Amino acid sequence: MRYLIYFSYDGSNFNGYQKQPGKRTIEDEFEKALFNINNKKTGIYASGRTDARVHAKGQTAHFDLDVKITPYKLIRALNAFLPNDIHVFKALEVESNFNARFCVKKKIYEYIVNCGEYNPIERNIVYQYCKELDIDLMKVAIKDLIGEHNFSPFVSKEDKRESYVRTIYDASITRKDDKITFKFVGSGFMKYQVRYMVGTLIKVGNKKITPDYIMKILNEEEYLKFVSIVKPEGLYLTDVKY
Amino acid sequence: MRYLIYFSYDGSNFNGYQKQPGKRTIEDEFEKALFNINNKKTGIYASGRTDARVHAKGQTAHFDLDVKITPYKLIRALNAFLPNDIHVFKALEVESNFNARFCVKKKIYEYIVNCGEYNPIERNIVYQYCKELDIDLMKVAIKDLIGEHNFSPFVSKEDKRESYVRTIYDASITRKDDKITFKFVGSGFMKYQVRYMVGTLIKVGNKKITPDYIMKILNEEEYLKFVSIVKPEGLYLTDVKY
Repeated sequence: MRYLIYFSYDGSNFNGYQKQPGKRTIEDEFEKALFNINNKKTGIYASGRTDARVHAKGQTAHFDLDVKITPYKLIRALNAFLPNDIHVFKALEVESNFNARFCVKKKIYEYIVNCGEYNPIERNIVYQYCKELDIDLMKVAIKDLIGEHNFSPFVSKEDKRESYVRTIYDASITRKDDKITFKFVGSGFMKYQVRYMVGTLIKVGNKKITPDYIMKILNEEEYLKFVSIVKPEGLYLTDVKY
Repeated sequence: MRYLIYFSYDGSNFNGYQKQPGKRTIEDEFEKALFNINNKKTGIYASGRTDARVHAKGQTAHFDLDVKITPYKLIRALNAFLPNDIHVFKALEVESNFNARFCVKKKIYEYIVNCGEYNPIERNIVYQYCKELDIDLMKVAIKDLIGEHNFSPFVSKEDKRESYVRTIYDASITRKDDKITFKFVGSGFMKYQVRYMVGTLIKVGNKKITPDYIMKILNEEEYLKFVSIVKPEGLYLTDVKY
């Protein structure tokens, strides 16, 4: 039986999603929990990786179990074996050809920035920028990221692949009190892509560059030097749509 | 020169405010920072203690410095020496007879409860109760805590003192999405008092007791057994008024 699960985690104390020898990872914790449920080594396949200290409100993964178990009981069993910084909140039986990574239609990421006084209580879950940002300028700039583009200027140099073309269906910026949330809905995002896009939008917000630089960065190589990255702490994988 | 400072902290990784040998405490971190600024051992006197894992949005303390320094520079110097889970956001010069504890007029505490799905990202800063609560019943019950009462039923047995009479000027409950915030404005609160009051109000909200039990607990010894406590994680010292 193949199962699809939805889960959240606090990335603060993980070295990211993917297994690495000697490091605490989310994949490792799931493999330990699944070993207890399925009584053997059981692979788990997520919608994608997240980096160290990045959080998830709605990550997904699939795996196969020899035992048949109701989704309700599967959620309870997984949460019983998982540590308290990971939480499974939904489970479904799926077809045996379903794949949590290759069947993704849309992924939603959010990035949260605090423009107010430094907040020690939220230092691991909101980027403490602590300076004012011009949200109107950033709203103009973010529009140029919507659509189908070659996003290679906003991708980690470590991330080598054939095509950097992706589609962003929607991108928005909202403010509540001192917190600004950047939201991106896209076909898929590459390594550091959201953090590079937000870092560069923040340079628009603090007036180091003008909003038209986003389009120039996407199209002209000499503008690559204006790309900036932000810390992982403010980043959330919010939802995955199939 | 005597200074009054306002500061916030994430209590998660502290054994409370007060110094204890071999344990990490907020007082200790301030004494280390003040040693660097004042070039000698310098005592710091807070508005009151907070317990292990309790947070502060607006704790206060006073201390004396041999050096005269502007409040702006004092804030910067303290934050430079303090760890990133403590943050000073305001400083004032005060009269030499000012005392951060004895001059308190009002203290404000908040307690935050999540009634929705378990949230691993907020597990150290919001109590993950994860069940529904009847907010209307709790709103009826909390009114009986307002006013001058002998709060001894809601105080830790370790906290021995002459009088348990205190005044609660205002107490309210608000809900936003799945989060319920209890807010208390009072002349002062004793050890575990807010956590006992909230724990008992939650028993009203989950219908283990009726709202009239609050008054009975305050006045009749045989009702003491209905008092409950909640975890420190959801508790915030929000503000101190002079």
